[in-house]
Amino acid sequence: MTDIESSGRSDGRLAELLNFSRDGDVFTAQTPGGSSDGRLFGGLIAARALAAAGATVEDDKLPHSMHAYFIRGGHYGSDIVLHVERVRDGRSFATRRVTVEQNNAAIFEMIASFHRPEDGTDGYPPPVPALALEDSVEVGTTMVLSSTFEMRGRAEDPEPFVLAPFWIRTRRPVDDNPLLQACVLTLMSDIGPVPAARPPGASLAALMTPNLAASLDHSIWFHRPFDPHEWHCYDITPVTTGNARGLVRGGLVNRAGELIASTSQEALWRG
Amino acid sequence: MTDIESSGRSDGRLAELLNFSRDGDVFTAQTPGGSSDGRLFGGLIAARALAAAGATVEDDKLPHSMHAYFIRGGHYGSDIVLHVERVRDGRSFATRRVTVEQNNAAIFEMIASFHRPEDGTDGYPPPVPALALEDSVEVGTTMVLSSTFEMRGRAEDPEPFVLAPFWIRTRRPVDDNPLLQACVLTLMSDIGPVPAARPPGASLAALMTPNLAASLDHSIWFHRPFDPHEWHCYDITPVTTGNARGLVRGGLVNRAGELIASTSQEALWRG
Repeated sequence: MTDIESSGRSDGRLAELLNFSRDGDVFTAQTPGGSSDGRLFGGLIAARALAAAGATVEDDKLPHSMHAYFIRGGHYGSDIVLHVERVRDGRSFATRRVTVEQNNAAIFEMIASFHRPEDGTDGYPPPVPALALEDSVEVGTTMVLSSTFEMRGRAEDPEPFVLAPFWIRTRRPVDDNPLLQACVLTLMSDIGPVPAARPPGASLAALMTPNLAASLDHSIWFHRPFDPHEWHCYDITPVTTGNARGLVRGGLVNRAGELIASTSQEALWRG
Repeated sequence: MTDIESSGRSDGRLAELLNFSRDGDVFTAQTPGGSSDGRLFGGLIAARALAAAGATVEDDKLPHSMHAYFIRGGHYGSDIVLHVERVRDGRSFATRRVTVEQNNAAIFEMIASFHRPEDGTDGYPPPVPALALEDSVEVGTTMVLSSTFEMRGRAEDPEPFVLAPFWIRTRRPVDDNPLLQACVLTLMSDIGPVPAARPPGASLAALMTPNLAASLDHSIWFHRPFDPHEWHCYDITPVTTGNARGLVRGGLVNRAGELIASTSQEALWRG
């Protein structure tokens, strides 16, 4: 895998999310490049795990949900090894388990499910974006992944990415491949939850210290087809904090007002 | 395990959730008794899986979340075998994976995390129950688990348990054991989500046919100490339906207004 975080050629680099060295159901990926603090971005691990799981599933079954724990912090520069277990292959659904290791230690544990598309009644109005795209301003020049994703937030927020809602899209088109699109959604869905999970009044400085603030788990439900190059509003709502943990819930809505995906994340907050 | 669904002696029978035949990290449990349709209640499988996971974790780490897939339908009368894998034992957190099998086929796959209690700032107001306990009426004589749990719903609903919110508590006190209390919460948290996940206007008749309506996944975040014999309001909110699936989110609030737990479930709805 090439470094998806340091180039403007996002399309090709995002497509690399699906590429691995493969030996049966064991997948290996490089992690060059990196963020300023050296920590492997959680959304990248999750996206790679979903990609590996998807590589073992029939093409006409698409991811409809994933649940995962971040077990240890990863870092850039060492390969990650993804072990996929085929829990079940049914007629309508397939279930996979993926353990991601780095330096022979488990850093990530995921279960995911794939569904052959079926018709069904659309129901319930999606949340209305709390920030209109027209009222947002471009942000993100200092952010991780800023060369891959374009983001817009509130004009009054100096660091809009820590203050949901925000609008987001890839800078370049992404191949029309539902598995790849789901992996890109997985990658971007981890932008925002940790800061949103902080206790009221907590300093954002804790974000710089893994032992003080870190993702604990991550869940995504993929509701509808997703075009990563179209603008989507990602709103993240705190549910509760306490016991050094905070839970948030998110929703990704496109400009047509469709709820594309829902997310949940619990984060450690000792700050 | 004894049949927790057909006796008024709920306390002792709920305590049986923690009892297994054990060979290392492989646990075996009986499934006598049963519901009218013969289907093993999903919340019971989840509760037993959490109990097995917890039996392999140090006593001072408590469950803070679980995520699971219902893979195949289970039935009463055959033993279930629970395979626990110790993914990680850290200083603050422990991670477990549990696969539940019946007749040598996986029926349930769970990942769960345990946390040594830490101090942290409580934040965000809990949801206000949409139904006041004082305005509710006793229901549930025809329901599964009605001998274990007492439930109160809206007077105008003939089948209140399919129309959240409702109030619920165990009929008898439960031992002051945080793992057991979390298992009881897990058991009760699966009452309600499937019907709440139906598309608007869908007939509840589909609930009687596993191939038409069934739980797909289940997540719980355990926020605060839980006394199962105290009244709690369980409110379940539909998020979206489509593609024969529906996602709901729940919250369990006690009479003091504390958010005790949050839940999510996606259900299959072909009705």
